[in-house]
Amino acid sequence: MPVGYSRLPELLPVPGVRLAAVAAGIRYRGRDDLVLMELAAGSRCAAVFTRNAFCAAPVIVAREHLSREAPRFLLINSGNANAGTGEAGLADARRSCALLAGRAGCEPQQVLPFSTGVIGEPLPVDRLEGALDGALERLSPGGWEAAAHAIMTTDTVAKGVSEQIELDGRPVTITGISKGAGMIRPDMATMLAYVATDAAVDAAALQACLREAVERSFNRITVDGDTSTNDACVLVATGQSGTEVLQTGQEGYRRLCIAVNSVCERLAQLIVRDAEGATKFVTVEVEEGRDAAECLSVAYTVAHSPLVKTALFASDPNWGRILAAVGRSGLPGLVVEDIDIFLGDVCIVTAGGRAPGYREEDGQRVMEQEEILIRIRLGRGEAIERIWTSDLSHEYVRINAEYRT
Amino acid sequence: MPVGYSRLPELLPVPGVRLAAVAAGIRYRGRDDLVLMELAAGSRCAAVFTRNAFCAAPVIVAREHLSREAPRFLLINSGNANAGTGEAGLADARRSCALLAGRAGCEPQQVLPFSTGVIGEPLPVDRLEGALDGALERLSPGGWEAAAHAIMTTDTVAKGVSEQIELDGRPVTITGISKGAGMIRPDMATMLAYVATDAAVDAAALQACLREAVERSFNRITVDGDTSTNDACVLVATGQSGTEVLQTGQEGYRRLCIAVNSVCERLAQLIVRDAEGATKFVTVEVEEGRDAAECLSVAYTVAHSPLVKTALFASDPNWGRILAAVGRSGLPGLVVEDIDIFLGDVCIVTAGGRAPGYREEDGQRVMEQEEILIRIRLGRGEAIERIWTSDLSHEYVRINAEYRT
Repeated sequence: MPVGYSRLPELLPVPGVRLAAVAAGIRYRGRDDLVLMELAAGSRCAAVFTRNAFCAAPVIVAREHLSREAPRFLLINSGNANAGTGEAGLADARRSCALLAGRAGCEPQQVLPFSTGVIGEPLPVDRLEGALDGALERLSPGGWEAAAHAIMTTDTVAKGVSEQIELDGRPVTITGISKGAGMIRPDMATMLAYVATDAAVDAAALQACLREAVERSFNRITVDGDTSTNDACVLVATGQSGTEVLQTGQEGYRRLCIAVNSVCERLAQLIVRDAEGATKFVTVEVEEGRDAAECLSVAYTVAHSPLVKTALFASDPNWGRILAAVGRSGLPGLVVEDIDIFLGDVCIVTAGGRAPGYREEDGQRVMEQEEILIRIRLGRGEAIERIWTSDLSHEYVRINAEYRT
Repeated sequence: MPVGYSRLPELLPVPGVRLAAVAAGIRYRGRDDLVLMELAAGSRCAAVFTRNAFCAAPVIVAREHLSREAPRFLLINSGNANAGTGEAGLADARRSCALLAGRAGCEPQQVLPFSTGVIGEPLPVDRLEGALDGALERLSPGGWEAAAHAIMTTDTVAKGVSEQIELDGRPVTITGISKGAGMIRPDMATMLAYVATDAAVDAAALQACLREAVERSFNRITVDGDTSTNDACVLVATGQSGTEVLQTGQEGYRRLCIAVNSVCERLAQLIVRDAEGATKFVTVEVEEGRDAAECLSVAYTVAHSPLVKTALFASDPNWGRILAAVGRSGLPGLVVEDIDIFLGDVCIVTAGGRAPGYREEDGQRVMEQEEILIRIRLGRGEAIERIWTSDLSHEYVRINAEYRT
């Protein structure tokens, strides 16, 4: 069970977007594993991809297609990542796009392919092809929920969020879905996220909006420090709301960005809440750093520490492990005596040692909660950063030792 | 059970060194937890310490004392790290040295204190004091084995190695012990190591010898990427063999360094073999890098990956996870097509994908072994580096979730 999240809320349709989920039998049996997302003509599409050097074939092809044509379809499969598959994998990704384009009457370059699942197995394009006609028939504005389920791999729950704002006196919807539970860390991870709005947004402004939102959401989460070969996040603006085309600097653009940010932040947090084996949802906040980079460096060192993560799993206020992680984060000229560390509202470390008046039961009380805040005050600047992570449990090992076998 | 190591071999006495292990009741009951190591007058002593900014009180005091006087005693306790204890911890470490010095008739600055165990608890100096007389009485050249046992914390086995070489036609002994099983990674870890020889070595040459040996041994192992506040490695040269005082550049010095290297490498490997929950002993070798730094960067990214480590635990030849880790190691201009990856002698990846002719059963055969070699050929230079690590098992989580509680 995810921490603090039990099931998908209602997902609002986005005018200009239709979705279908079908069972292609790519790897899983008895469940949908192929999603088709159709974007109305005139839609704009921004995307960010994994920075892993070994990026998957669909990532290479999606980047290529995006640079040439405005996409009309996103074609997403779960169960097979089409990664580590060399030239044959590239050919498979291209063929999948062509097969859909032939049926849908568009150019292959107007299809963006996405894959998530096992690395290194050839993509069964024939099975995918066999499911395309059914998917095209089933396209519907209400397909978000089925799509959220179909893109899952080790996720235990489907993830989605909707928001509405008003622009030019008209309602504008932002709906997003995401998947991911392991191989998660900044610079994207084994995660896919698709967010769409019916706002009309200038192409450069849309990319800027996505980049900023991803930086503050998907790039602020870590489960295990591993990044994937397939990560992608797409933001679509169909323009069907009939509102004016937004440009950077406009008030309406700023408000849309805040809403997209909020949707992405919630989708990112859902990934951590559903992290493999997670029993805790942990916020690590680093304050009073000289700049964002050093705040993040401390935050990730703490969040990646297996010893901190197992202490979180054990609900053990083992603040020595947090302190040791801060100490090895590599900040130049770190003055130990200036650092304060809090568990929730309980001060546990000051002046290089246990805080006077700290009582084990106070730390224990915080650690027993499902949602925990670790706050580190560096005492050397004004910067502040916040990331989200999970604990390291028996389940994490079981899931990752058994996956694939 | 450690991987490929069952018990302490015979440890040869080092003329000029006497040791005692006693039960002070610092944290553990019914076992020795305090070690006294006496160095004959005229001994030289080199040391390297943790680079964690939150270094423990004994590390600060040992550094201070080492800079002033030639040490006559090492005073080592297990069960309590005296770390995160602020000013009071420093006073406790100094008082421990003074209490021993008063009884042994030396200066407090001639005592180096070392502690390992739980962080953040006050050191029970009274219990330590109560055990000092007994320890002084029990000092013996044959005390190595008892000392190796007494410095253990989460270790499941005592760790030690002896070698002999001939210098000036006389036998010279090098004996060392180490402890450590978790919180292990380069830049030292929750580990202590004490190596002594009866060779006579110039002070600067001794420090150079230790620095080089540590770089190639204790700084090439990782269990969980966590570093401790208390790590230390000490190399003592008593000069009692009666051989000439070795200087850098001499043939005898070179031969001594090789032997010290070999002892440190074996002690370091023993820590990985006994890593918390380890079922595998894994060598990660990165070849054909542009320089040592980039080889190490790739090697540690692979060795720290929880997904690679759980696959190792599962004996699953999930080469996609190795490939993904190499891909995210951050090397500029990495050409995926130039990289080859081997499991043992089995080529699993070439040209960005699964190697032609690779069969799952061949990878499986390698992964089922207790000792596994992962070899990565970057195809862009001449440098080569090798590190050692372990897998991530249920036991690792259990040990670290339960420790302290």
